[in-house]
Amino acid sequence: MDFTPSPRTQQYLERIRAFIRDHILPVEEQHFREVSARRHGADWTQWAVSPAVEALKARARAEGLWNLFLPDAELGAGLSTVEYAPLAEEMGRSFLAPEVFNCNAPDTGNMEVLWKYGTAEQKERWLKPLLAGELRSAFCMTEPDVASSDATNMRATAVVEGDEIVLNGKKWWTTGLGHPKCKVAIFMGLTDPKADRHHQHSMVLVPLDAPGVSIQRMLPVFGEYDEPYGHGEVWFENVRVPKANFIVGPGKGFEIAQGRLGPGRIHHCMRCIGAAERALQLLIERGIARVAFGKPLVNLGGNRERIADLRIAIDQARLLTLFAAWKLDDVGALGALSEISAIKVVAPNVLQQVVDEAIQIHGGAGVSSDVPLTALFAQARALRLADGPDAVHRGVIAKLELSKYHHLMKQHRSQGE
Amino acid sequence: MDFTPSPRTQQYLERIRAFIRDHILPVEEQHFREVSARRHGADWTQWAVSPAVEALKARARAEGLWNLFLPDAELGAGLSTVEYAPLAEEMGRSFLAPEVFNCNAPDTGNMEVLWKYGTAEQKERWLKPLLAGELRSAFCMTEPDVASSDATNMRATAVVEGDEIVLNGKKWWTTGLGHPKCKVAIFMGLTDPKADRHHQHSMVLVPLDAPGVSIQRMLPVFGEYDEPYGHGEVWFENVRVPKANFIVGPGKGFEIAQGRLGPGRIHHCMRCIGAAERALQLLIERGIARVAFGKPLVNLGGNRERIADLRIAIDQARLLTLFAAWKLDDVGALGALSEISAIKVVAPNVLQQVVDEAIQIHGGAGVSSDVPLTALFAQARALRLADGPDAVHRGVIAKLELSKYHHLMKQHRSQGE
Amino acid sequence: MDFTPSPRTQQYLERIRAFIRDHILPVEEQHFREVSARRHGADWTQWAVSPAVEALKARARAEGLWNLFLPDAELGAGLSTVEYAPLAEEMGRSFLAPEVFNCNAPDTGNMEVLWKYGTAEQKERWLKPLLAGELRSAFCMTEPDVASSDATNMRATAVVEGDEIVLNGKKWWTTGLGHPKCKVAIFMGLTDPKADRHHQHSMVLVPLDAPGVSIQRMLPVFGEYDEPYGHGEVWFENVRVPKANFIVGPGKGFEIAQGRLGPGRIHHCMRCIGAAERALQLLIERGIARVAFGKPLVNLGGNRERIADLRIAIDQARLLTLFAAWKLDDVGALGALSEISAIKVVAPNVLQQVVDEAIQIHGGAGVSSDVPLTALFAQARALRLADGPDAVHRGVIAKLELSKYHHLMKQHRSQGE
Amino acid sequence: MDFTPSPRTQQYLERIRAFIRDHILPVEEQHFREVSARRHGADWTQWAVSPAVEALKARARAEGLWNLFLPDAELGAGLSTVEYAPLAEEMGRSFLAPEVFNCNAPDTGNMEVLWKYGTAEQKERWLKPLLAGELRSAFCMTEPDVASSDATNMRATAVVEGDEIVLNGKKWWTTGLGHPKCKVAIFMGLTDPKADRHHQHSMVLVPLDAPGVSIQRMLPVFGEYDEPYGHGEVWFENVRVPKANFIVGPGKGFEIAQGRLGPGRIHHCMRCIGAAERALQLLIERGIARVAFGKPLVNLGGNRERIADLRIAIDQARLLTLFAAWKLDDVGALGALSEISAIKVVAPNVLQQVVDEAIQIHGGAGVSSDVPLTALFAQARALRLADGPDAVHRGVIAKLELSKYHHLMKQHRSQGE
Repeated sequence: MDFTPSPRTQQYLERIRAFIRDHILPVEEQHFREVSARRHGADWTQWAVSPAVEALKARARAEGLWNLFLPDAELGAGLSTVEYAPLAEEMGRSFLAPEVFNCNAPDTGNMEVLWKYGTAEQKERWLKPLLAGELRSAFCMTEPDVASSDATNMRATAVVEGDEIVLNGKKWWTTGLGHPKCKVAIFMGLTDPKADRHHQHSMVLVPLDAPGVSIQRMLPVFGEYDEPYGHGEVWFENVRVPKANFIVGPGKGFEIAQGRLGPGRIHHCMRCIGAAERALQLLIERGIARVAFGKPLVNLGGNRERIADLRIAIDQARLLTLFAAWKLDDVGALGALSEISAIKVVAPNVLQQVVDEAIQIHGGAGVSSDVPLTALFAQARALRLADGPDAVHRGVIAKLELSKYHHLMKQHRSQGE
Repeated sequence: MDFTPSPRTQQYLERIRAFIRDHILPVEEQHFREVSARRHGADWTQWAVSPAVEALKARARAEGLWNLFLPDAELGAGLSTVEYAPLAEEMGRSFLAPEVFNCNAPDTGNMEVLWKYGTAEQKERWLKPLLAGELRSAFCMTEPDVASSDATNMRATAVVEGDEIVLNGKKWWTTGLGHPKCKVAIFMGLTDPKADRHHQHSMVLVPLDAPGVSIQRMLPVFGEYDEPYGHGEVWFENVRVPKANFIVGPGKGFEIAQGRLGPGRIHHCMRCIGAAERALQLLIERGIARVAFGKPLVNLGGNRERIADLRIAIDQARLLTLFAAWKLDDVGALGALSEISAIKVVAPNVLQQVVDEAIQIHGGAGVSSDVPLTALFAQARALRLADGPDAVHRGVIAKLELSKYHHLMKQHRSQGE
Repeated sequence: MDFTPSPRTQQYLERIRAFIRDHILPVEEQHFREVSARRHGADWTQWAVSPAVEALKARARAEGLWNLFLPDAELGAGLSTVEYAPLAEEMGRSFLAPEVFNCNAPDTGNMEVLWKYGTAEQKERWLKPLLAGELRSAFCMTEPDVASSDATNMRATAVVEGDEIVLNGKKWWTTGLGHPKCKVAIFMGLTDPKADRHHQHSMVLVPLDAPGVSIQRMLPVFGEYDEPYGHGEVWFENVRVPKANFIVGPGKGFEIAQGRLGPGRIHHCMRCIGAAERALQLLIERGIARVAFGKPLVNLGGNRERIADLRIAIDQARLLTLFAAWKLDDVGALGALSEISAIKVVAPNVLQQVVDEAIQIHGGAGVSSDVPLTALFAQARALRLADGPDAVHRGVIAKLELSKYHHLMKQHRSQGE
Repeated sequence: MDFTPSPRTQQYLERIRAFIRDHILPVEEQHFREVSARRHGADWTQWAVSPAVEALKARARAEGLWNLFLPDAELGAGLSTVEYAPLAEEMGRSFLAPEVFNCNAPDTGNMEVLWKYGTAEQKERWLKPLLAGELRSAFCMTEPDVASSDATNMRATAVVEGDEIVLNGKKWWTTGLGHPKCKVAIFMGLTDPKADRHHQHSMVLVPLDAPGVSIQRMLPVFGEYDEPYGHGEVWFENVRVPKANFIVGPGKGFEIAQGRLGPGRIHHCMRCIGAAERALQLLIERGIARVAFGKPLVNLGGNRERIADLRIAIDQARLLTLFAAWKLDDVGALGALSEISAIKVVAPNVLQQVVDEAIQIHGGAGVSSDVPLTALFAQARALRLADGPDAVHRGVIAKLELSKYHHLMKQHRSQGE
């Protein structure tokens, strides 16, 4: 249970911090102002790759600050989850940083899946350009017509017909789908309804230009379309791809998903913590700078108590996430199930709470776009739903907690459930 | 302490409910979709009056559902605050309804001020067209460069020079400023720094086409510009208006503000409660319609407990607001100070809480624009800042509570403060 | 919906306030100190009636401040629930006051039952001395061996055999059972398991000296035995009473319970609110008197915000309780079911919260017996369980809220429950 | 930042767990029942040492499970704070365990002070018998007449007169004072009001039989006197002890206190976490065993969500405490100030929250003495006040957080404070 950043982590941490400070933050605000000024709104067909971001990516890659999330020592940096976690936190302080370092969701998860499970051909065609930052990818899981928190509700199908897989279904909240370079999606669908509960679904690679794939629209999050990434609704109608596009094989969807989600959730949560630190910093700086009733706001009413509570909440969230990361490294995603669900509840809620207080201390500016607080709020609020809503994760934790009492449960079973 | 809706309230309530149901809600969604499709964003110069809304206004006016907020029996409906409150709640269930019935902020407050304090000439020029719904007005109070929660921070000036008042200063969060028909603002500024604390500031009527008035920009609230109303930043540079534009006279600003804010806060809070009822309804309807793990969402986990807690919270907020309204009618704004501050804390927080839970039960749809939850969230979040942030209102309540112990305070005064 | 205290309420209120201030509070502290000094603990056989309390009762009765809870104009004061509510609040500020005015639970509920449903003989034998304050009574509902929150769990039986009713079962949390003058209990038990769910149980009057009734022990609440009242565990083994001891008749238990609990819960909640006001007063007085870091505690950190929040919470709880009382008077207990459950959740929780903060501001003294805060805490904490735990009441509220959507529910029923 | 239990910790942990399970828990309930049956109440003169506890102590000592808290490898087990922490958690699952292993407060803190700062003579006379478990000691810090959360309020004096120190003052909440073997106290008092703020106070060893020391009474915590330990009020009137009784020397009180409180707070918090685990276990066991509405309570309403939230809260509290312990070992108490204050807020609040929920699920039994929940509640509630109330610790955290922005603070200083 050692969370001390390793010397390699420490060194990367300093370089990333410097890079963000020196190269990203100075252009970030202007970048988003320009994107906003274009007023493309939902019209993703107008979205373009930003030359500024591409330049930052090139620089990061040249400096070796690239693919740090990937445990592979050659393709990535060979860091364990607990080693990478502090880097994800640092990247979470900036909206652009994750992509600049080629460490953004959902590409990281997709790359991990291809790295772990992909065939040589799949790796050559998709993983290589993804690792090079030349492509972007999407992950098609959530569906608009059912409560996707219950995976068995999934209606999309990936049926084998001869040498092909036929895909049908509607997906939404497919992040990154609007990006001009987004060319491929991992699609999850029902293949064999007769198999046992955990072997019915498959993951399939789908080029987005395949006939039958139609992007319906981009969805806003609290009014923002997150140009040029976007969160899309996409329909699949009799889309045909070769059987070679299965990842691992038919019925392996859940198994892969389980492995994919563990590290991804750690990354999300550590970025949340970085974002929360940024929000707390904004809160305090504003609270020192603004004066009312003869005192800086930080010295009024319960503001110091609130700062203390937020500091405590952030530190606890970080420790819990590092603990989950350590356990994931130590015993695997299945053994760390309860802890991973715990951070998935805790980290976005802490971020939401910090941002809400930061907004309050900023007054009107807090809800405007003069400070990035509403964007941080949207990040937190959306993450309380993405990758499983809070309620589902609480359910997992409770189930595992109660399983410690299975003898007692069995003894009382006759009394109904 | 009788909150029973009077027969007149009851009759208006039914008519308003029917009007909203039959005429407003059927077009509201389409209306906002069209506004959004125009993608004007912050460019208020493109904003236009909606013919659909104008038609609804004409119909409402023809039916006598017009200016119901105004206590004047001839110009309005002659309802007391406690009588009007349930109508405001009902209007709060729709985003368009307040304007359709000519009962929207800040025009209601401005009309009340002119009705109570305006000269015959001021009434003729401004009140009359406002009551006819032909004009819109703004209220310039909050400033970007200081913590406006402390009114003594105000930097804007309204200095008498000969027969004129010279206005200088920056104001923001001036709601309605972007509307094409917004032609006049009530400007609050410092007139006499040597007067006692409550007689330094004045309210002045300023035509928005006066030389020196320059609208800088519209501010978004969680990304939305609230077209065609908007929340503007506006600068006043050596703007000159005749002394006849003082409301009441120099140094009367605080006195008027106090009177203006009482009923306005009641209206805001009752609309919040209507909005909260709407959000709870959306939550429950979604929770019944969606199924996960074999049950409708309302029957999963703690959802029923949450519904109960939200029902309790809404009912308590309504009762407290009705109580404040009754007390305002009974003993005036000053006597109801603590209660008005209490509802200003309670109602927006309850709305925020209900909306947050409703978003959660909607999953991804909750943060999109497919349901109006993010708009309701923005309303709640902004109102926790507008008209005084929560902390200031809590401070007022505590001060009044402690004042009941003034003998004890005096006795211990020597021990410091 | 008129909560204004009637002139009669107002007049009683002033007299009760004066009586408590002049006659009860001056002796209350000393009284409890003496009780505590006797160190009887759980040994209720040593408990004795307090001459001081008897004297106060005599005085209150002589002054006509007696049985004010009873709606009967001759036997009581003829006040409606909403008229009596403020008197209950006032009594809640003192631990002794409810008994002094012959308005304490569970005797009030038992007297109401006898008054409403008793035969002439039952009234003569039991109601008369209860109204005279000469007897005390108990109510045997909760059972130690089952979750009594689900009334259908009840195991006690009240079986008809010839002219007799045979009672069997274990009951606990029978309040008042340890009092030397407690001579009779209303016992609830299963009579006819074949009847429909709401007609299986009966209420039966049982003299406590009947053979087969054995008091097992008194139960502490947070260590306190509440001498000389107590909360007892009592076993009934083949206790035989004549059929004339049924209240109304066999199978009428639930019907009577429903009527009994409505006003009783209003009284409990109003007393809670009185207790909360007392706790807030203690908090503020201590917060003014104590100085740390150069300021009275009320001016440190978030204490003023806390005072504001508690003031708001208490006022909301009072309004909700008055609303429930008004609705109970207006449409009966069944029509006010949701509101009565709501206050049963709100009022004890508000009291617990106020007391917890008051303890905190008192430092060590707060958890000692130097101030009555731990006793108030125990009152709040126990009441969150008595008369149905919070969860059950939340369940009732949610059920009634969802019933407004029964068409939608029906439509989706096929999707499981 | 390695929290992995060391092999030595792991081995001690298993032995302690077995000892508690096999020897302590089987007698604990009976022990407290007997103590309670004696009904000594506040009369500490009747309190006696328990032969059962003495026997357990002898066994623990014989097994080498003794003085494990002491970092000294010869006198104790030579464990670091982070190594000892899990043992403290384990001991926190039992009320008797801390004393049985000679690891109970305040003796642990007093022994540490004597071990670190005591003269050879002081060690011989007091430390030796304390380490042998033959003596008990007290720590006199808190005062009844002032807000002791502000140490500068302290009124007690320890004045040098010739070769003697003269002690005067009133102290309360002196834990352990009622124990028959409590023979010595460390007394903190003002020695030199002219010295700088942190060198005015001294710690002095006082035999409790010194003339002028008078124990006034024992104080209850939520009605319990904690026999045979107790929390006493004790007055010092012209008590004279030789100058050799200074610890370190005059004016060294704060310095010693700072060092004393760090590890002590870690111990307190880890015991809280053990107690919280016990309460959660009781909650779940009861929730599985009891059935209502056809289901075990754990499957009703929000109970599973609550269990998840409590699990998360406990795990976060443990990680934060281990982190604070690790930092204390790494950089000393001063460097870990913020973290130690953080756990002091978090751990007792988490315990209080877990216990409150456990009480709720137990129904009436929860507030009785049939389960140890009210005792656990009292532990939590008292610890939110002892060693500094929550508000003071939040203040420390905020101060340290804001100190990171000292440049900004300085820049804005002119704007008031």
